[in-house]
Amino acid sequence: MTPKIPASTAPVRGPATPAAKIVILANGTFPTHPVPLVRLHDADMIICCDGAAEKLVANGLEPGIIIGDLDSVSPELKERYGNILVQDTDQDTNDLTKAVNWCIAVGIREVTILGATGIREDHTLGNISLLADYSARIDAVMLTDTGSFRVYDHSVTIDSHPGQQVSLFSIDPSLKVTSSGLKYPLDDLTLHSWWRGTLNEAIANTFSLNFNSGKVIVFLGYCQGVNLK
Amino acid sequence: MTPKIPASTAPVRGPATPAAKIVILANGTFPTHPVPLVRLHDADMIICCDGAAEKLVANGLEPGIIIGDLDSVSPELKERYGNILVQDTDQDTNDLTKAVNWCIAVGIREVTILGATGIREDHTLGNISLLADYSARIDAVMLTDTGSFRVYDHSVTIDSHPGQQVSLFSIDPSLKVTSSGLKYPLDDLTLHSWWRGTLNEAIANTFSLNFNSGKVIVFLGYCQGVNLK
Repeated sequence: MTPKIPASTAPVRGPATPAAKIVILANGTFPTHPVPLVRLHDADMIICCDGAAEKLVANGLEPGIIIGDLDSVSPELKERYGNILVQDTDQDTNDLTKAVNWCIAVGIREVTILGATGIREDHTLGNISLLADYSARIDAVMLTDTGSFRVYDHSVTIDSHPGQQVSLFSIDPSLKVTSSGLKYPLDDLTLHSWWRGTLNEAIANTFSLNFNSGKVIVFLGYCQGVNLK
Repeated sequence: MTPKIPASTAPVRGPATPAAKIVILANGTFPTHPVPLVRLHDADMIICCDGAAEKLVANGLEPGIIIGDLDSVSPELKERYGNILVQDTDQDTNDLTKAVNWCIAVGIREVTILGATGIREDHTLGNISLLADYSARIDAVMLTDTGSFRVYDHSVTIDSHPGQQVSLFSIDPSLKVTSSGLKYPLDDLTLHSWWRGTLNEAIANTFSLNFNSGKVIVFLGYCQGVNLK
């Protein structure tokens, strides 16, 4: 018989069933850093943006869904994965947005985005900024080969490690941020240029950002030997 | 005796002496695409941002100046290039800005920036946006392995090729742009998110951007077999 768990030790946060680990693989640089690679290999389902399916299969993994214009998928893969192709030819959205929209439509609430940077820098900029558009509808984190990007639409305390590299970006140049726990403290600073909040550093195991409205994109560099949450 | 050149064939534009070809090599990804590589090999002087000197020398080229904190330059290179080291420990500027400021201080008016993207994405974002800060003081173009970034602070007609990839970014989300010669025309569009002006395409040999104030960052993808001006 299963022992009864006292109420005080029962989990009080989070769903009874852990969320499935859903990864979207975009068609930028295929991950090489252990943090995104582990996330890729641990995924319950991998959603590939168009040609990213070719890279995934070449790396010995199986796509769960292949979504996009599908103009970058070979006839061989189209035949092999015919039952998991989702063609979306909307001219106004890129393949990463199509994948995120698909997740939202089927009820997925958390997603890790990989392969969304590298190769063309204009795609990198666009994909990072799209995180801000998704933030109200899905909990998305983007992992690159150097760190993570996540968007916050409210004041927040973030887990960190002393010496961890931190950069902050805002799409809205009027947003003012005050920080604590950073090497170069922000005191009601407007992030009016993209470089303004870069090259900072955590000095403890958490740092805090305070702002009244808008959204802040937070980059955290990986720490050697430390897992990223 | 040198034949007299008729007035009608004499050069009517540009300085009597062409500007020296000055390249700043930042410490991101060392160029691999032919366009930035040719620019690097054709340079009259290469200004290296700190550790970029190591990469340059490893690629068989000689630095003209090495500038920055100099904490990423080996003792061997410091000794070998002792007479061209410029130590600038200003905490408020990154090494690329130090190099640009040095150029401006010594009277250089045109510069090509290489190696400013790749590796950390937060550095890429910061370096691209810094172009907008430099634009009033120096004519700077940034060449990556996929294309070029240049900043315009006025309406402009830009040389292009049909099918050339074009992305537009603005630091100021209130700036409104109207275009002609692009596949997806902009009609008084605000570039309020970084993705908003991405994934466009030139349809002819020029395209035009019209805006009343502010600055637009223009990315042009390289065209196969076509030299970048």
